Amino acid sequence: MADPSKCLPLTRASVQAAHELIKPHIHRTPVIHSRTLDEFASRQQTEAELQGTPWEGQGPGVRPTVRLWIKCENLQRIGAFKARGPFTPSGGWSRTRRGSGNHAQALALAARENGIPAHVVMPSVSNPTKVAATAGYGAVLYESGSAAPERQKMLDSVVGRTGATFVPPYDHPDIILGQGTAGLELQEQAAELIAEHAAKTPGGKARTGLDAIITPCGGGGLLSGTALSCEGTGISVFAGEPSHQGADDLVRAIRANLDGPISDVRTLTIADGLRTPVGLIPWSIIRGDRRLVRDAFAVSERDISRALRFVLERLKVVVEPSAVVPLAVVLFNEDFRKLVEEEGGEDGWDVGVIFTGNLSLDALPELLKIGDEKA
Amino acid sequence: MADPSKCLPLTRASVQAAHELIKPHIHRTPVIHSRTLDEFASRQQTEAELQGTPWEGQGPGVRPTVRLWIKCENLQRIGAFKARGPFTPSGGWSRTRRGSGNHAQALALAARENGIPAHVVMPSVSNPTKVAATAGYGAVLYESGSAAPERQKMLDSVVGRTGATFVPPYDHPDIILGQGTAGLELQEQAAELIAEHAAKTPGGKARTGLDAIITPCGGGGLLSGTALSCEGTGISVFAGEPSHQGADDLVRAIRANLDGPISDVRTLTIADGLRTPVGLIPWSIIRGDRRLVRDAFAVSERDISRALRFVLERLKVVVEPSAVVPLAVVLFNEDFRKLVEEEGGEDGWDVGVIFTGNLSLDALPELLKIGDEKA
Repeated sequence: MADPSKCLPLTRASVQAAHELIKPHIHRTPVIHSRTLDEFASRQQTEAELQGTPWEGQGPGVRPTVRLWIKCENLQRIGAFKARGPFTPSGGWSRTRRGSGNHAQALALAARENGIPAHVVMPSVSNPTKVAATAGYGAVLYESGSAAPERQKMLDSVVGRTGATFVPPYDHPDIILGQGTAGLELQEQAAELIAEHAAKTPGGKARTGLDAIITPCGGGGLLSGTALSCEGTGISVFAGEPSHQGADDLVRAIRANLDGPISDVRTLTIADGLRTPVGLIPWSIIRGDRRLVRDAFAVSERDISRALRFVLERLKVVVEPSAVVPLAVVLFNEDFRKLVEEEGGEDGWDVGVIFTGNLSLDALPELLKIGDEKA
Repeated sequence: MADPSKCLPLTRASVQAAHELIKPHIHRTPVIHSRTLDEFASRQQTEAELQGTPWEGQGPGVRPTVRLWIKCENLQRIGAFKARGPFTPSGGWSRTRRGSGNHAQALALAARENGIPAHVVMPSVSNPTKVAATAGYGAVLYESGSAAPERQKMLDSVVGRTGATFVPPYDHPDIILGQGTAGLELQEQAAELIAEHAAKTPGGKARTGLDAIITPCGGGGLLSGTALSCEGTGISVFAGEPSHQGADDLVRAIRANLDGPISDVRTLTIADGLRTPVGLIPWSIIRGDRRLVRDAFAVSERDISRALRFVLERLKVVVEPSAVVPLAVVLFNEDFRKLVEEEGGEDGWDVGVIFTGNLSLDALPELLKIGDEKA
């Protein structure tokens, strides 16, 4: 991966160019739709259900009309949209060896297919499914402590010893452009499905595509890439974050109208892909002068767990907790739901979401139990 | 659903006609492919892995070349191909009320969309996910004992009291034709994907479509429908069954060259959708004079559990144990694998399988534990 200054500019056209580059290496994952999910998303939350939440005591919830179009990036290679980043060397694969942070599997796979050794540093608390899969793609693994300084120390030592080049998991133009290609495909695929759906349900406004896309936000790679992919289309882009232990750093930065991202985040949210603070390059797209992301919303661990159960039981796809955070926002966050009700009106909104899925099955019973607890 | 004598004849053309009828009511579910799965299916089982199996002591296993094309009927409405049957009234929806056996959710959904009350008899041991979903579609539920005579007694009582018409879960031409439509779509979709795949991997024979389809076999509705959908295409059709407690009634009937199906089957295999014996109409297609199914193979509970874990962890789709029985045959049954090696040779076979998925998440830890036991 090249020096950031030599990469393509951060625009929708560059996301399209990145798409042409990576197409031979990735799956065009399906977009699914479920009437059962639409009904569930469009129903009113009762006063009892809202007890213990920030909307307690305000009566029952609103009744937005929501149709959801779900891009199954859990069926992507390595089970996640992250496969799209490391295959996007818009400035060329410039060096022969690489170190790595967290997007371990994607990097290991892309390196293997480019005939390059991969060295991957993973914290000892990493999801065992991800560790096993990364090893399966032939990467050399290094275990580190889970805190940022410990990881950095191990990373520096590996880079020093092997001469590898560090490939950051989100704070790099190529990664952002590559991940934005998922948003591009979602727009195209959803437009077709929405037109079909509209033809079957006469009346109402002409529906030709998505009104909004909501993505999870950890480091902000997928979010900022998606925002680029939507620039100039009229599609609103939103972010979902876990609220647990301050994982909602983007929500807090937006509410406080900060000039830069909050960099100190220490959280053990079950949405383990979203524990990182927003990176500087993603921030420059999400906020900065461009403000390509309209707003961000947070959800509780319980809401994430409930959304996870619904997806596994009713949508029949395996997803990880991080992936269902945006869906949990749509289903349970009354602030977002009010916005949809107000702007979407009777016709409602067509909302796109992107799923990913490297779930540890052994952790599943614990993850589901959280949803059964009282709010 | 009409008198069987008034239904369309049991041919490939009738499956195509049924497809036109049900298209507006069903999803065209995606077909997925995974290099990781192909690699796993094409590897040799070691001598140690074969210990405790029928192939123990014969050295390591064979090395077939297999590419798998998976029809995700778990993403179908109600989570299963069973949705395709009750929407197929080739002789017309003749009565206004219906009783039911086991394909509860599909019937409840089809009845609701046709404005007809549904009465559903379910054994008390039924999968709670299926019970909840059936109730969610507005069916009136009746709990019965789990043995066939107890279910029949409750069924007779409901039919007597309500005047409902009994809709059998598989032993009816419309159900068979409807379920065959999944095979039809799989053939079309796989042919496109295989041509694409072949273009990327030069050399070898021209690959234009599936060599074989393997389906699970309980009552035989999906199997016989799929066999009809393949008639005259040159695609070989196979069945997979669990071996536990004699659930492999079709395998046994074929090996003993019987003239009719084995009707007395009492098994509590984890593949709970495959506990029933093969019905008479399915048998007439599978064997009878037509012999549209080439052969059947059985797998152990442990093999089913191991296949289930692989699918959940690596393919990222939620499936039920019954759904992975054919995949377990491809991965672990050396008799089937020998056949693929012999007939497929170096080029190998493109094999289609159909997934369905109404998994009870609460049962999952137990289901996965079985795969960790010694064979």
